[in-house]
Parts: sequence; C-alpha cells; structure tokens
Amino acid sequence: MTPRYARARQAKTARYDAETIHAILDTGLVAHIGFLDADRPMVVPMAYARRGETLFLHGASKTRIARLDGVPVCATVTIVTGIVAARSGFHHSMNHRTAMVHGMARLVTGAEADAALDAITDHLLPGRTGEVRAMTAQERKATGVVAIEIEHASAKVRTGPPKDDEMDLDTGLWGGVLPIATGLGTGIEDAYTPEGAPEPASLAAARAKFAQ
Amino acid sequence: MTPRYARARQAKTARYDAETIHAILDTGLVAHIGFLDADRPMVVPMAYARRGETLFLHGASKTRIARLDGVPVCATVTIVTGIVAARSGFHHSMNHRTAMVHGMARLVTGAEADAALDAITDHLLPGRTGEVRAMTAQERKATGVVAIEIEHASAKVRTGPPKDDEMDLDTGLWGGVLPIATGLGTGIEDAYTPEGAPEPASLAAARAKFAQ
Repeated sequence: MTPRYARARQAKTARYDAETIHAILDTGLVAHIGFLDADRPMVVPMAYARRGETLFLHGASKTRIARLDGVPVCATVTIVTGIVAARSGFHHSMNHRTAMVHGMARLVTGAEADAALDAITDHLLPGRTGEVRAMTAQERKATGVVAIEIEHASAKVRTGPPKDDEMDLDTGLWGGVLPIATGLGTGIEDAYTPEGAPEPASLAAARAKFAQ
Repeated sequence: MTPRYARARQAKTARYDAETIHAILDTGLVAHIGFLDADRPMVVPMAYARRGETLFLHGASKTRIARLDGVPVCATVTIVTGIVAARSGFHHSMNHRTAMVHGMARLVTGAEADAALDAITDHLLPGRTGEVRAMTAQERKATGVVAIEIEHASAKVRTGPPKDDEMDLDTGLWGGVLPIATGLGTGIEDAYTPEGAPEPASLAAARAKFAQ
C-alpha cells in the first residue's frame, strides 16, 4: 500500500538553531563554496568538514584555495529529499534541507591544518584516517587548508506534501511527492586490492551516516 | 562477485564541450547560484532549466530574484557519484560531474517567462505541465523569472578508482570507490488524491531521467 500523507503536513521553515544547521552540514556530501574571483562570482563544489563553529576546506596549494585567505565566502550544503508534485505548476517545489554559512576564510597551517585534513577525510569516510598511512611532509606542503569561522548561518527545510490551492484539491488530480534518496552502495575494490580483502569499516560507517 | 576496476582507469578531466556541459545541466536536480548581495557572496540552491544556451531560474517576485537583474552570476550543478577511498588521505577524492556556468542575469517577462516556468517544472518532472492546470495571471505576477545567457561554461568530471602512489599499491590495503546513487522512489500521494489514482507519467519520466 502506498503511504498517504495526512492533511496539511507540509512545512517550509527557516531555522537558525545550531542543532539543525550542524546536522545538515554534518550529513552533506559536498559544500558549494561561493566567493568573488576577479570581480566574478564563483561557486565551486568542495569536500569539507565541520569542527565546532568552523568549516574546513582543502585544495592544491597552487590553486585558487590560497587566494581565499582573508576573503568572505558563503558555503551552502543542500540535501534534496523529494520533488513536490502539486496540482498547479505554481506550487511545485522540492523537499530539501539547506544550510548556508557565511564567514571569512583564512589559511591555516601546522597542527590545525593536519587536524583539518583528517577531519575532511573522516567526514566522507568516518574513521578512514586510521585505516591509511599518514600524510608525508611533501603532501602537506602541496595541500592548502582553509578555515571558515561561521559568522552567520541559516537553514531552510521543506518537508511533506504539496501545498495546493483550495480550488485545486478536488480536481481528482494526483498530488504528492516523488522521494529522492541518496544511496551508498557496496565498495568497488580496485585492481591493487588483495583478492578477498574485506571492505574497510569506514565504508559501512559512511553508508550509515549518509543514508537519507 | 564484486566488480573490480581495471588498472589505471581513473580519469579527472576538465571539459569545455557543449555536449558534456549540457548533459550535466540537464540531469542535475538543483543549481547552486552564486552572486554578490550587498558585498557578500551568496550561494542559493534553485530549481532551473536549460534551453539552448540559456539557463532559467525563478522565485517569488518580491524576493532576491528581482535583484539579480543585470548582475553577474555563477550557476554550478554537481552530481556526486562516488567517494574515492585511496590508500593515503592525500589521494582521497570524489567521483563527480560538475558544470559551472557564468553569465549575466536578466529578468524576463511575457511569453519568454511563461515558457521558462514550464521548462523549470518539466525539468524536474518531464511532461508535468501537461498534467496540471495552467498558471493564473496572479500566479504569473507573483513569480519572477531570470534568464542567464551562458557566456562561459566548463565541466569537471572524475571517474574510476583512486590514483594511488606507486609505493602504496602493494601494502595490502583496500582501495576503491564507494558508489553514490541518487534514487527516485515511488510517488507518495497526498490525502487529496483519489484512492487508487495512478501515478502520473511525469513521475516515471523523472525516475528515468535522474537515474544515475
């Protein structure tokens, strides 16, 4: 049997509490990072991690990441959970959870950068840094790390069925939600993995973390 | 049996051909729109549609959308397909397809705006505009539509297994990819849908379109 939404359960809310915002940041896969580059707005998808009220990003030292030092950035994380099929084009929508963070970027180095890099790897594959070798000095030198102290943050969350106009409700039209799920599968080992080597624990941890 | 990648199949490429860029734009669910708002970079997730070399966005007339008129924007669409688990933290990565578009936004009205609104609905649910009632004049007035002519566009595509250092390959460590799939489920009808009403065709069309 198809589950049916109870009446008027749709909700679209702006949220400003840390708990909601942190939960979205902690379960997103990529952040879309916005900044101005030579007077042109740029939006770049990046891996990231949150520790307290700080977001960390990384990139090759020689690329754009170094130029973010001292620059205001916006980091937006969006988790889409459904397409809302209303009875009018006007009321179509998407169910989603979005966190938007504003802050100044600053390059970090030393122990803070080391911890940030581990945090970024462990954000995607929890515990992975304990499964692989440590970074070399050369790799550290080649990697730029940026911290964004969260100065302002907001969340938008939409859930539930369409919010149709009263006049459209008894038209006999189908209205509802087409759910969207993010699914992480079974790890596909590469050609250098010993035959029969078990999947590392971090992959199961990621499946549990990102299951929407 | 777990599928195994052949050696050296990983590929990370920048692409500038229209075919690659259009394919990413046409199969993404949301675009992250970047622009400057009172000297602050903003990144907002939005529904969109592409027609030729133009992207269309919409929003409530009274909101930020109207202020995009004549403003340079960046629209980035990212489809994440896997977490790349390398044998060093350094070589961890994500498999993804990203299209980044730059252009000037302009408010559109009249027939162009009407067509754009239908295109945005049909981008998410192909054919949906033929299943629902037409927009009213009041709804049109309440909706701002923006066009972005694509002035510059690029794509980045990463596929395949990790690219590990030679020295890490015979460590016996597991290396490979944790696949990420976007799955659209069965439509969940709301309480105003007649019992037994079949799912509209646009939902199956969306499932086919966005199956990654």
